[in-house]
Amino acid sequence: MAESVERLQQRVEELERELAQERSRRALGGGDGGGGRVRIEKMSPEVVDSNPYSRLMALKRMGIVNDYEKIRTFAIAIVGVGGVGSVTAEMLTRCGIGKVKTFLSLSCRELLTYGVNQLLLFDYDKVELANMNRLFFQPHQAGLSKVQAAEYTLRNINPDVLFEVHNYNITTVENFQHFMDRISNGGLEEGKPVDLVLSCVDNFEARMTINTACNELGQTWMESGVSENAVSGHIQLIIPGESACFACAPPLVVAANIDEKTLKREGVCAASLPTTMGVVAGILVQNVLKFLLNFGTVSFYLGYNAMQDFFPTMSMKPNPQCDDRNCRKQQEEYKKKVAALPKPEVVQEEEEIIHEDNEWGIELVSEVSEEELKNSSGPVPDLPEGITVAYTIPEKQEDSVAEVTVEDSGESLEDLMAKMKNM
Amino acid sequence: MAESVERLQQRVEELERELAQERSRRALGGGDGGGGRVRIEKMSPEVVDSNPYSRLMALKRMGIVNDYEKIRTFAIAIVGVGGVGSVTAEMLTRCGIGKVKTFLSLSCRELLTYGVNQLLLFDYDKVELANMNRLFFQPHQAGLSKVQAAEYTLRNINPDVLFEVHNYNITTVENFQHFMDRISNGGLEEGKPVDLVLSCVDNFEARMTINTACNELGQTWMESGVSENAVSGHIQLIIPGESACFACAPPLVVAANIDEKTLKREGVCAASLPTTMGVVAGILVQNVLKFLLNFGTVSFYLGYNAMQDFFPTMSMKPNPQCDDRNCRKQQEEYKKKVAALPKPEVVQEEEEIIHEDNEWGIELVSEVSEEELKNSSGPVPDLPEGITVAYTIPEKQEDSVAEVTVEDSGESLEDLMAKMKNM
Repeated sequence: MAESVERLQQRVEELERELAQERSRRALGGGDGGGGRVRIEKMSPEVVDSNPYSRLMALKRMGIVNDYEKIRTFAIAIVGVGGVGSVTAEMLTRCGIGKVKTFLSLSCRELLTYGVNQLLLFDYDKVELANMNRLFFQPHQAGLSKVQAAEYTLRNINPDVLFEVHNYNITTVENFQHFMDRISNGGLEEGKPVDLVLSCVDNFEARMTINTACNELGQTWMESGVSENAVSGHIQLIIPGESACFACAPPLVVAANIDEKTLKREGVCAASLPTTMGVVAGILVQNVLKFLLNFGTVSFYLGYNAMQDFFPTMSMKPNPQCDDRNCRKQQEEYKKKVAALPKPEVVQEEEEIIHEDNEWGIELVSEVSEEELKNSSGPVPDLPEGITVAYTIPEKQEDSVAEVTVEDSGESLEDLMAKMKNM
Repeated sequence: MAESVERLQQRVEELERELAQERSRRALGGGDGGGGRVRIEKMSPEVVDSNPYSRLMALKRMGIVNDYEKIRTFAIAIVGVGGVGSVTAEMLTRCGIGKVKTFLSLSCRELLTYGVNQLLLFDYDKVELANMNRLFFQPHQAGLSKVQAAEYTLRNINPDVLFEVHNYNITTVENFQHFMDRISNGGLEEGKPVDLVLSCVDNFEARMTINTACNELGQTWMESGVSENAVSGHIQLIIPGESACFACAPPLVVAANIDEKTLKREGVCAASLPTTMGVVAGILVQNVLKFLLNFGTVSFYLGYNAMQDFFPTMSMKPNPQCDDRNCRKQQEEYKKKVAALPKPEVVQEEEEIIHEDNEWGIELVSEVSEEELKNSSGPVPDLPEGITVAYTIPEKQEDSVAEVTVEDSGESLEDLMAKMKNM
């Protein structure tokens, strides 16, 4: 009898433990954190319901991608796991990328020991119910750190992807050093750099920080952004020295993207839509896939104006007077590299496009007509103080460039940026 | 002692029951099916972390939408809950749409009694690991019916939305009648029609079935599709009698979109990417929001060529010789309606654009240059037998139209469609 009681007590304890585990799993991410399916050693093109890669490997048979399996050899760092970053991480995870890197608080640093890891996520925000108008996070995750909740969900979706998460603000001095270190050493093989850094942040300071790091490291990265009125966005590929960096021509990239926290304090918030953010994440990851797997045309800049369904493309040359000394250094190195190439005519052709009176060297390469540009201007919304729209295209292009670059410049880029930050 | 054993046994039973419940909840959708947050009676613009609508209501302050709350008064039916349909349903759910309708097997019909309901979902497929390269479903949901798994997840994300799910194939005679009935009577108020039908299916037959139903009912709907090679897609708005229906000019809309099941049997499958499907779902729901909430320009046709980041827009007039007698009937009614309007010049203007030798009345309204069209042609992939690419734009537009419409037609549309189905 005593034995039976003991056994029952053990069973109760066991069940209570299991129940607690089960509840915390559900609270975290939905699935069971890697138990959703077993890990797969080698991607197979076999057409069976149980193969999560059959539809991706079919890209080879369709003649789109030569070597899809190569996706597993890449490591991507994502900074910001909000409306765009979370969906970006999910798409890359479902595509079977090698590693995803995002960034955790010191107390959660132990998650780094979860195993080997290859998608890097950086964010220091918590999931809130106010985020539920965008894809990815669910109400039962409210209060959890975004990178932690994201990592748990993503690991469940695809246990073949390696994750590294950092829950901190990259703009502080100490964190910046750690961030630089993880970019240059956190590749698929420890000690090698990541293949791409993706900026999915919502404020000017974080963008400038990523820009500074990538210019110093010569790290290729992609920028993304959504306007405060939720109806436009863009993505941009930045190859240090080759294309304009974020400091070369900031106003074209982002006008006054103020940190959401500042706005919240004043009882005002930016608008956002799952549609616009989903489209921006989609074109961002599509550009990543084209860049890494070498198919189609990689866009240097692709905009999305949802009001008119207008998608401008262009490419921007770096500014020789860029304020960032590492950008100027990378430009010199790129020039030397190009000069050493056997075919100089490629460079000539590119240079012909530049307008002579264009001190910024900004060139519009797309076939966008005046009328299209005009049609694409959405209505100018009645904005609360401190917010301006980043992506509504001005009626006259020349005027806007003049306004933005301060033609006969007595002001430095630093002054301009300081102004923008205070707008 | 005996009492203590009994109490322990009760506790064990209780815990086992709770554990089983907890496990089935997690297996279904991740969250706890509505317990993620409480229902909200009235949308509020208040900027607090706990308000899931603050970022959407901000669209009013930003001058984009006049009356965002109106979103709650609409009912949308979604046919097909795959790569595009599931994300479409999730976006609408997060936006706080009134009702989502999708379509359940007879045995699951009891889910209809879950409560009042307003997003209608129709699908008869099961979740497979092979779907994991697209957003939304998770590995632990494998084996569940798509509409059931989707409904569970969506209800957890936003308990304010009403759901109605139907797990059947809409193309059988019996189901078609039920489908027609739910479209015309399953609005937010029972007995009223839904506000929009969204086609997110993967085969020609289902598209034609939706077209037939909407022409008969005069129901406005939107079509969506992704090509077999995963790198292009489109959305299309069809207002019976006003714009071309799916039977008016089928080859422009879809070439030979063969049912995935047919391909699977032969060990071949279409390629798909979460990026392309996410972009198509994003532009589809954006068009839905613009249509319902009256902002921006609603696109009649918006294409997406991922290889070149090219997004053609156009609008198509209905074909006066359309094979669908209800389409012709709707055209007559639309003409009468337009004739009764006080301002005839609007109609005149529209008609001026039509090319005289264009028997299909297909007009390209967008500002797409010859060169852009040419540049947008992706490489012609090496396709397995039975698959053709729907969206690669042919080099010469005239040729393609000629090829498609069989200029001096000895063939009826029925013949053409039969041919396409056998392709």
